[in-house]
This record gives sequence, C-alpha cells and structure tokens, in this order.
Amino acid sequence: MSEPKAILVIGAGDATGGAIARRFAREGYIACVTRRSGDKLEPLLQRIRDDGGQAHGFGSDARKEEEMISLVGKIEREIAPIEVAVFNIGANVRFDIAETTARVYFKVWEMACFSGFLMGREVAKAMLPRGRGTILFTGATASLRGREGFAAFAGAKHALRALAQSMARELWPKGIHVAHPVIDGAIDTEFIRSNFPTRYALKERQGILSPDSIADAYWQLHQQPRDAWTFETELRPWIEGW
Amino acid sequence: MSEPKAILVIGAGDATGGAIARRFAREGYIACVTRRSGDKLEPLLQRIRDDGGQAHGFGSDARKEEEMISLVGKIEREIAPIEVAVFNIGANVRFDIAETTARVYFKVWEMACFSGFLMGREVAKAMLPRGRGTILFTGATASLRGREGFAAFAGAKHALRALAQSMARELWPKGIHVAHPVIDGAIDTEFIRSNFPTRYALKERQGILSPDSIADAYWQLHQQPRDAWTFETELRPWIEGW
Amino acid sequence: MSEPKAILVIGAGDATGGAIARRFAREGYIACVTRRSGDKLEPLLQRIRDDGGQAHGFGSDARKEEEMISLVGKIEREIAPIEVAVFNIGANVRFDIAETTARVYFKVWEMACFSGFLMGREVAKAMLPRGRGTILFTGATASLRGREGFAAFAGAKHALRALAQSMARELWPKGIHVAHPVIDGAIDTEFIRSNFPTRYALKERQGILSPDSIADAYWQLHQQPRDAWTFETELRPWIEGW
Amino acid sequence: MSEPKAILVIGAGDATGGAIARRFAREGYIACVTRRSGDKLEPLLQRIRDDGGQAHGFGSDARKEEEMISLVGKIEREIAPIEVAVFNIGANVRFDIAETTARVYFKVWEMACFSGFLMGREVAKAMLPRGRGTILFTGATASLRGREGFAAFAGAKHALRALAQSMARELWPKGIHVAHPVIDGAIDTEFIRSNFPTRYALKERQGILSPDSIADAYWQLHQQPRDAWTFETELRPWIEGW
Repeated sequence: MSEPKAILVIGAGDATGGAIARRFAREGYIACVTRRSGDKLEPLLQRIRDDGGQAHGFGSDARKEEEMISLVGKIEREIAPIEVAVFNIGANVRFDIAETTARVYFKVWEMACFSGFLMGREVAKAMLPRGRGTILFTGATASLRGREGFAAFAGAKHALRALAQSMARELWPKGIHVAHPVIDGAIDTEFIRSNFPTRYALKERQGILSPDSIADAYWQLHQQPRDAWTFETELRPWIEGW
Repeated sequence: MSEPKAILVIGAGDATGGAIARRFAREGYIACVTRRSGDKLEPLLQRIRDDGGQAHGFGSDARKEEEMISLVGKIEREIAPIEVAVFNIGANVRFDIAETTARVYFKVWEMACFSGFLMGREVAKAMLPRGRGTILFTGATASLRGREGFAAFAGAKHALRALAQSMARELWPKGIHVAHPVIDGAIDTEFIRSNFPTRYALKERQGILSPDSIADAYWQLHQQPRDAWTFETELRPWIEGW
Repeated sequence: MSEPKAILVIGAGDATGGAIARRFAREGYIACVTRRSGDKLEPLLQRIRDDGGQAHGFGSDARKEEEMISLVGKIEREIAPIEVAVFNIGANVRFDIAETTARVYFKVWEMACFSGFLMGREVAKAMLPRGRGTILFTGATASLRGREGFAAFAGAKHALRALAQSMARELWPKGIHVAHPVIDGAIDTEFIRSNFPTRYALKERQGILSPDSIADAYWQLHQQPRDAWTFETELRPWIEGW
Repeated sequence: MSEPKAILVIGAGDATGGAIARRFAREGYIACVTRRSGDKLEPLLQRIRDDGGQAHGFGSDARKEEEMISLVGKIEREIAPIEVAVFNIGANVRFDIAETTARVYFKVWEMACFSGFLMGREVAKAMLPRGRGTILFTGATASLRGREGFAAFAGAKHALRALAQSMARELWPKGIHVAHPVIDGAIDTEFIRSNFPTRYALKERQGILSPDSIADAYWQLHQQPRDAWTFETELRPWIEGW
C-alpha cells in the first residue's frame, strides 16, 4: 500500500470492533478506533502497535453530530483518507412492550441506528470525491426479525439495515461499497462469558463466533472487486439454529 | 354492538386515516381521530356524524409521550374502551444521503416510528387486561426496501415494522391482534393529485389505491377470527409494478 | 349474480378445499371440485346441494396435462366460465436428505407444484380473453422456509410461490388477480385429529385454523377491488409461534 | 494439503463452472468436472493441467439418478474424497405463462433443480461419515423473485434454494457446510457477449461479473471456519440495479 489509508471503527469497545481494527492494521491500514471513553482503548491500541501496526484512539460520542463531523474531518486532515469505515455499535436490550420506556426506545435507536447514520453520511461525504471506499454496517438477527421483547433493538437494527440498503443503492454506482454483514449468533465476548456460561461453553466446539473470523469476513468484503460486490451476507456458527 | 367501543386513529389528517375512521364508525365504533391541529378535523367529524356515526377529534402531538398517555387515558375513561387502534402517520421525504440532515433523519423517525411506539404501547396497556383488541400499523413499500434517497423514511418504516412484528409475537397469545398491512402504491389523495398528475390520471382505471378500499381491508383484518389472523398483507393496484 | 359463474377447486379432497367450494357456492358460484377419485367427492357435492348450491365433481388427475386441459375445457363449454380457480393440493412429507428418494422428490413436486402450473396456465388461457378472474394458490410455511427434512415439500411449495408471483406480475395488468395466501399453522382436519391429538386439542381455544376461516379469507381476496389487490397474505392461529 | 481431495463441479460447461474448477485446482484440489458431452470439457481440462493442476472430465447427465450415483461413487473410490461439490446448472428461459409448455416447465425444473437434488443427496451421503465437506448451490436473482415470464426458471431456482436451505439446517450440525451464493447480474460469458452486446460492453467498467471473481467468492466460502459460516450471500456488479 503506497499511500497511507485509514480504517475508522466506530464502537471498538467490544471484541468484534477490536478484532476488525487489528485485522486491517495488519494489512497496513491505520486503525482509527472510537468508543465513548477513549482511555479504555489503550489495550487495543497497544496490541495493534505491538503487532507492528499504527493506531489512533478517540473518545467520541457517536450520537453527537458535531463530534462525528469533527472526528471524520480530523482523521481525513491529520491522519489519512478513510478508506474503510465500520459501524459496530449495538444495544441489545429486552423488555416487554408495556415495560419499554420511551427513554429506552429512543436511546437504543440513537446508539444503534442514529450514530450509524451520522457515520455513514460523514464518511460518504469524504469518499464521494474519491469515488472509492468501503462502508460496513454490522447487522444482527434482529435486523431481519422482530422477536418478542425486542421492539427497541429490532427497530434500531431494521432501520440501520434500511440505511445501509438505501446508501448502497445510491453509492455503489459512485464507487463506494456499502455492505451489511449479519452476525447471527453469540460472539465470543466477555459479556457472553459472564452472562451466558452454557452458551459460552459451546466455544470449545466452535459453537460461538470468534471475533477474528468476523474480522476476516469484513476484510474479504473490502477486498471484493467491484464486478462482484456483496451487499448482504450472514455469519453463523455451524450448530446455531435458524 | 351492545357495549360502546372506540377506534383510535392516529394521523387522521390524510384521506386514508379519515376513510378508516368513517368505515369503523359506520359499523358502530366511536371514531376518535387525531392530528396535530385538531381544528382541521372538523370536516371529517362532520361527515361521520352526517352518516349517523359518532366521532371525537383531538389535536394531539403523537410524538409527545405525555400527550399520548393522556389521550389514551381520556378516551378509555370518558368515551369507550379502545377496541381498535390504527397508526397512520407517514413522513415520506427524499434526500441524497449527503443532503440528509440529522434533523430530518430524526424528525422522520420521530413522526413515522416513535409516535407509533407510543401509541402501540399505550393501547396495548389498555387492551392487555381485557385480553382483546386490534392494533394496526400502516406499512409502505419502504417498510420492506430501502430505496435510493429514502434512508430516513425507509429507516422509520423498517423500524415500525419491527415494532409491529415484535408486538405481534408478544401480544397475539394474549388476545391482541397486531397487524402490519403494507400499502404498496400511490393513494388517491390531494397530495398525489397536486404533485403527480400523471400518476393521478391512473385513477380512472383504478390504478391508484382508493382510501375506501384500504379502509375495507382494515375492517376485514379486525373482523378475522383468532384461529386465522393475518400479521402482514399487502395492497397494491392491479397495474402497479413490483 | 346474473350470469352463471364457476369456481374450480383443484384438490377438494381435504377440509380446506371443500370449505372453499362451499363458501363460493353459497355466494352463487357453481362449484366444480376435483380429486383423484371422483366418487369420494359425493359427500361434499351433497352438502353443497343441501345448502341450495350447485356443484359438479370430477375425478381428475391434476398431474396429467391432457386431463387438466380437458377438465377446464369441459367446465368452460358445458357449465360456466371459470371466474375463480383455487389450487389446493399439498404433499407434506418429511425425510432426511439421505433418505429422500428421487421418486418421492419428483412426486411431491409433481403433485404440489406441477399440477398447480397446469391449472394456472389452463385457467389463465380461459380468463385472458375475458380480462377478468381470480387464481389462488394455497401456500404454507414451507413456501417461505426450507426446514430440516423438508427438501422435497419446501421445494415444491417454493416453486409454486414463484409460479404464483410470476403469473401475478404478468396477469394482474391483464385484469386477472393471482394471489398466494400462506396458511401458517395446523388446519382442523381429520389428518391432524388422528395424527397430532395434542395439537388438535388446541381447537378448543381456536388454536388451529378452521377451514371456514380460510374459506372466508379466500372469498375476501376474490372480492377485492382492483385498485387494492393483495398478492401475498398469511393466516395463522393467534397462539402459533412464528 | 496432505491427503488428496476432490472438488466436483456439476455443470462445468459455462465460464463460471470452469473458473471454479480452475480456482480450486490451483489450491491443490483434484478437479472433477462434468457436462452432458464430456468431450467439450477438453479445453478446460487442458488449461487446468497447463496450470499444474489435476483434472478429470466426465460426460454425465446430471438428471439421471444412476449416472449421478455412479459418478460420485467412482470419484470417491478411484480419485479422492469429494471435499467440495458445486452445482452450477442453470436453464434460463423466458415464456409468457400461456406459452410455457409442460415439457419446458418440467425440463427446466429437471435440469436446474432435480439434478441439484441428486448431486446434493449423493455427495451428502459420502460426506456424512467424514463429518466434513462443502456443498455449494449457485443461485440467481430468480431464486428470490418470480419475474414476469420466468415461471419455469424461477420455480426451479426457488426450489433449489429450498433444497439448499433444508440441507443446510440438517447438515451444518453434522459438519457439512451447505451454502447458496446468489449471482445477481450478467456474467462475462460467450452467451452474454453474443446475445446482449450492450450489456457486454459494460465489461470495460467491470459492470458484469467475472467468473474469476465468482470463483474467488466460492473459494472463500469453502475456507470459512465453522464458527462463522455463511448460508446465503450475494454477488452483484457495482452498477447493477436491484
């Protein structure tokens, strides 16, 4: 890679966002990773640097328009053109409809969808003049089905998918590859380990998704030649029911 | 109908909401109709009363939690139990992604989705103790596809569909029929007449949807016996491409 | 109804086909019903006549092109124009893939799909010059999902859905209403009573579909004005999981 | 690769099947390719060998159960275990419904679906005792939508998708990766070059799918670790409408 290129990962607080950042850093991309409290990004930044990569961490609230504009502008001006952007914020909560407060319903949408819109729009603006780039929105089972108790989460994920689809139809013919990989299963995270030990035990049989496997799939999406682009694909452990 | 029963139509500002209210009023339901400026409801209320029906109009901002809570409470206490609730607010706008402001993106979601959540939750709370009721969310083509330029509108409609689906899975087994009819085509409205005259000319051949036909379909959904309920159905003119 | 009109029901051997024939006969349609052994149709014909309707039974193998051509021709010439045609043959079998014989795979497709193609094409030919008519193909859960063990059945039902969709796109603009109602749940039939008694016990709570409810839905589809036609809809008991 | 492994490509008559065979041969797989007239396979076999790969050609009618059984048995016994099987036979024809003969309807299904069932079942039987393997069924736009004029083709492709889905649900937990990549656009073939020159001209802008790009995607599917398998994905040129 002759020219420096950046990957922006919004929501690198979890295992998946981190693995994606590391994967692209390994290929020479400058990893620009964000989460709400930037200091928690240190271990990830260190790990990327230990592997010989370049990384920058940003404490940034993805729900704030000004912060997103400023973040994208700063990276573009001071670090490198954003060649790849990944939106990876989830907000999986479960409530009966009568127990779903307006605050929760709004917050889930704001985090898991509105932030994605802000990122998508800002990086699209930066990529359009270059006629090149990849924008990946992480989907989930709830992107496709509204299960009982998931009115808020499924609403946000459905809306994010609509955003991705609408952007893909507009931006593909302008050279920007927008895609929506759907992660359909539990991921190997601290959250699953602590809260769903039985599920986590499936890890021994490769029954939960490894963040590294997800990162490989994201890398492949970015590598696709433009005569054969994927908009939607799905990743699911072999023993997962669907 | 021995006991008085009410139908609540949120968004009776357009032809469709009005036709639904009139249809149910004709069957003996007390029509409770809302739009932001209540005084614009007068012609509709008058027409229902002229046909021998009962009607109440409410100026109410469906996006405000307190107003929705107060509206549903007032109808339940002072008028009649809400047997049917219809959410019928749209917000169809088209913008390229780079031109979509955060304000527009939020406003469209707030009107076309968040309001639906507020209505759905409040009427569900009222219906649950009775173990009976019908909740209908009006869908559109954009509920199923994110077309170019419709990131905001398709996002709101996708999220509304997820809400309806999630509520249906939770509330059907509790006796409440939640459904999501998808209107896939232009409706015979003043808006279409003024802005899309060529399209409107199809009316002569029944090429655009009549609000009365939509109202009949909503009535049929409400009449379904619980051994054969529909969640999703679609209405489309015979000459519409799809 | 001034002019005599016929409804053709292919596969009136089960409760659903019979209920549909009776429903339309009650509205004045001449019921033309088929199954492989025509003599088994006697009770149905008698019941329709007892209710004051007209009915004709035909022993006919729907998989044979000549028989289908001859059947449709005979009804059109000797009885009345076919205004409505309903394809209602299923063939629900379950086998692991390794146990699915080529014979079974072919037979299931031949019965549940190829017969539907023959009926659809022949009635379309009769209806096209009149620019009017309704063609209904009965769908099932397997029309939309290929569950484990249902490679043959889901294959046939998926193909039947594709047929219905393709015909709808071609024939709607020519005045012929093709639709695909999806029955998603157990139906109140002798088969369910004998083989799934626990399921059948749900009948007391309206937990399985009544053939009469299905017949009402088919009647409503046929009655739709052409400005608001439905292609796909679904019928499911209130307590059914999905 | 220590042990010899075979890839079976049913329908290597076109550019895509050939490119897939070459791709896997390059990775060390012994390419076993079929088409109805085996002698037409010579150029492909020669090209693979010139590239240093191993290849075997078989003239085999995929619609004949005995031929499929014999083919799979022969490869397994005499060449190598079939590690990957690809079903790649299409039969894209367009007819109005009234012009679709029973013969065409059957033939299209037999070629594009029934052959796939035979291949799928036979290779599954061989793979099951090993608890390992990849089976790929090539999908198309018509796998998901029944367009006007494509009752036969869409029927076959829908049924093939149902087969793939049903097999995936059964065989994934037994270690066999079944997937259904959907090719949504024109492919760079002699057929497109001769019949759709305007379309073909898009090749200069990478506006039609390259068989090599498809082959890369198939290779990646086969390489996926089992904690993150894909069932359905889609490949589409960047300027394709959808």
